[in-house]
Amino acid sequence: MDSFNPMLEFSKFALVASAALSFSLSAQIAPQEAAKLRDAALTDSLAWEITEGLTTEIGPRFAGSEAEARARDWAVAKLKALGFANVRIDAFDVPYWERGEAAAEIVAPFPQPLTLAALGNSGATPPKGLKAQVVGFDSIEALQSVDPASIKGKIVFVTHRMAAAQDGSHYGPVGLIRRSGPSIASKLGAAAILIRSIGTDNHRVPHTGSQNWTDGARPIPALALSNPDADQLERVLKRGQPVTIALKVTAKTAGTRPSGNVIAEVPGRDPAAGIVLVSGHLDSWDLGTGAIDDAAGVAVTAAAAKRIMDAGQPLRTIRVVWFGAEEIGLLGGKDYALKHGGEKHHFLAESDFGADRIWRFETSVAESALPRMKAIGTALAPLGVVQGGKNGDASGSDISEIAKLGMPVLELSQDGTRYFDLHHTSDDTLDKIDPVQLRQNVAAWTAMLAVAANDPVDYGPVPPKK
Amino acid sequence: MDSFNPMLEFSKFALVASAALSFSLSAQIAPQEAAKLRDAALTDSLAWEITEGLTTEIGPRFAGSEAEARARDWAVAKLKALGFANVRIDAFDVPYWERGEAAAEIVAPFPQPLTLAALGNSGATPPKGLKAQVVGFDSIEALQSVDPASIKGKIVFVTHRMAAAQDGSHYGPVGLIRRSGPSIASKLGAAAILIRSIGTDNHRVPHTGSQNWTDGARPIPALALSNPDADQLERVLKRGQPVTIALKVTAKTAGTRPSGNVIAEVPGRDPAAGIVLVSGHLDSWDLGTGAIDDAAGVAVTAAAAKRIMDAGQPLRTIRVVWFGAEEIGLLGGKDYALKHGGEKHHFLAESDFGADRIWRFETSVAESALPRMKAIGTALAPLGVVQGGKNGDASGSDISEIAKLGMPVLELSQDGTRYFDLHHTSDDTLDKIDPVQLRQNVAAWTAMLAVAANDPVDYGPVPPKK
Repeated sequence: MDSFNPMLEFSKFALVASAALSFSLSAQIAPQEAAKLRDAALTDSLAWEITEGLTTEIGPRFAGSEAEARARDWAVAKLKALGFANVRIDAFDVPYWERGEAAAEIVAPFPQPLTLAALGNSGATPPKGLKAQVVGFDSIEALQSVDPASIKGKIVFVTHRMAAAQDGSHYGPVGLIRRSGPSIASKLGAAAILIRSIGTDNHRVPHTGSQNWTDGARPIPALALSNPDADQLERVLKRGQPVTIALKVTAKTAGTRPSGNVIAEVPGRDPAAGIVLVSGHLDSWDLGTGAIDDAAGVAVTAAAAKRIMDAGQPLRTIRVVWFGAEEIGLLGGKDYALKHGGEKHHFLAESDFGADRIWRFETSVAESALPRMKAIGTALAPLGVVQGGKNGDASGSDISEIAKLGMPVLELSQDGTRYFDLHHTSDDTLDKIDPVQLRQNVAAWTAMLAVAANDPVDYGPVPPKK
Repeated sequence: MDSFNPMLEFSKFALVASAALSFSLSAQIAPQEAAKLRDAALTDSLAWEITEGLTTEIGPRFAGSEAEARARDWAVAKLKALGFANVRIDAFDVPYWERGEAAAEIVAPFPQPLTLAALGNSGATPPKGLKAQVVGFDSIEALQSVDPASIKGKIVFVTHRMAAAQDGSHYGPVGLIRRSGPSIASKLGAAAILIRSIGTDNHRVPHTGSQNWTDGARPIPALALSNPDADQLERVLKRGQPVTIALKVTAKTAGTRPSGNVIAEVPGRDPAAGIVLVSGHLDSWDLGTGAIDDAAGVAVTAAAAKRIMDAGQPLRTIRVVWFGAEEIGLLGGKDYALKHGGEKHHFLAESDFGADRIWRFETSVAESALPRMKAIGTALAPLGVVQGGKNGDASGSDISEIAKLGMPVLELSQDGTRYFDLHHTSDDTLDKIDPVQLRQNVAAWTAMLAVAANDPVDYGPVPPKK
């Protein structure tokens, strides 16, 4: 919306001033220039400044909340101050859900409180709460195959084991319990569902997360126990006596609220060359301050884009997008696809997996662009980043919506070994960010952008996904 | 109270049955016999069984609560089933404090919720809460020297840094902020006090703990922020703008309630030889399930006593004490000193520092007993336990009350490096107990008891403490 920005003039001035890092404006970047930019980024302070600022001055930024709106204002001011052009908000509305209160206790046979958190879109209990027997399942398959009569009006508990993995690959299958368990339990007639947190830690911090009621599923209370509480409930159930839990949940849906994507640009020398989209998401779950998920992501990508901007106008326009409402269903990504799906994108990239060391570079590009992927891999290699997977594997969260239309994607993967210790918990706070690894992230993104935003070779076309 | 116990007959039978580990009944235990008992204890399962049972079937056991009463019944049944003699409860009343609810949020300049927990005996806010400006201090000395006019009606925040240490030695000085800060703030006219948790972790789990109002200090809300929240408040204050917090606390004192010490014995061959007191505390803070603090302590010491009992009647009576109401001021220890201060104790020992590896053996015995301490040290050495400190250093929590009268103390110290990550938090749960290290604890206590409970040499007298 704000297509003219006086800071752009400043940015051009900065370009002249940074002659030491200047490079040819008409060809691919020389490998040594990309290396210089990459190594300079290892002393970056901007990504920390953004992560610290957003988590401290805004804190939790739940989709549709007043805090997310303040975060957008914060983001616009910050991106303008950094000298980006065309800083603006793409506004859209989102359904709003209020967490309210959630309390639970084992009433019998061993009275004691339990620590848990409502999942997104959880229903409420009656105002005075509900008290029911618990039936335990060790997998979603076990729940699916139960005789509905045996759980009607009861509280279902589904447990599981989630292993920590560098690539976070257990999140997909194990996360199914969170995404689908509530609707399955509701349709089978359960009064409520408790799941073991989708997480790899052993702290009393439950992991929330999104779930949507499928057609015909009446909203019921749907909550995650912290892992130690899930251990406890498993032990209590193993004693073989009937277990009764009292539950009180005041969660509710509350109409729609404004959200939005914050967009900023580094205009390229060739406006027709298509957009390099670098992104993360601005919203967070409400329990923590969203440091690893995803203040670090918006910070790292913006810091890298700023470095490229300061080094000289790139060939292709870099568009920085801080998506809104990612956590409740990629709603920012969907809005972006709707509004910008017709624009040419050179490639899409997103950082939404914390800020530990980037270890892998993956691609989803045209065969003809694969030699250029080697050039990016070469620029990344000194940071300990390996080129992995097969071409076509690269993905992202919000960007997956527009990627479906058929657009190249590049992906830099952080080490996710401890990501699911913190993910969607109150423990997602600034102290979990390692400044040294954060700088390595900025260096990797800078190296990738230095090559890719100045690359005359197109990375597409890639076919649309069915 | 229950001085005749039919289980004692069973215990004598067990003695005959365990001939393989029998040793001379008239002299010191042979080093090889102590070694045998020690090494057998490395396969112990009883300490885990007690720790698991108490934390699962009772859970939190707050002093004076109905749960602590259930824990006493559980303990009596367990200790009788294990074959101990004279199993009984020494009952006493304790002042009762109810935690209620505690909620806080930064209202300005950066609205966001804070995670905190009331300290013991915290006062309440008015029913609708209180809203006040925050004044930060980085030490208790800074608070003490403030002009009272500058904090009158305000919320005081005291931060600090606590380092993890194997011997937990930072707890004393840093813990002063919790123990004394509230009374100091109250007397200076503050509306409330927030402290950084006395703990070494970085999780959103505040550390509660006891504090008592000194004469003239009106109870005010007194709470601990989790460490990440204290970090956050420090950062917010550093921005230099006035910081306002809204606080709602419903804590209250509620008369007196019953508590008690659970006592069990292994009668010695020489009833006049004095009592070997081995102990831990049965009560816990209400936030966790009291696994490291102190289910493990009662479990390890009882398991070791059981092993000595099963190996043959010891020379001296072993008295197992599971103290009540330790957390709110060593009230079980005080009651024990009152009721049993006139009895001869060969020595006192307590396990109340988690269940990580025991690394040190300390003593407070008569000079004449020092050669015998070498014998204990020899039995402990293969477990990696060193004899450390100077004679006179050994201490304990509950036993400190009766120790003041002038009684020998032996101490086995666990590695406390991670103890204050968990101490007094909701995170003090069974999963934090390492079964391998727990068994090493049982082996160390078994080795110590094997020598000391069969030692004809007296460990006293030691002079009363002033």
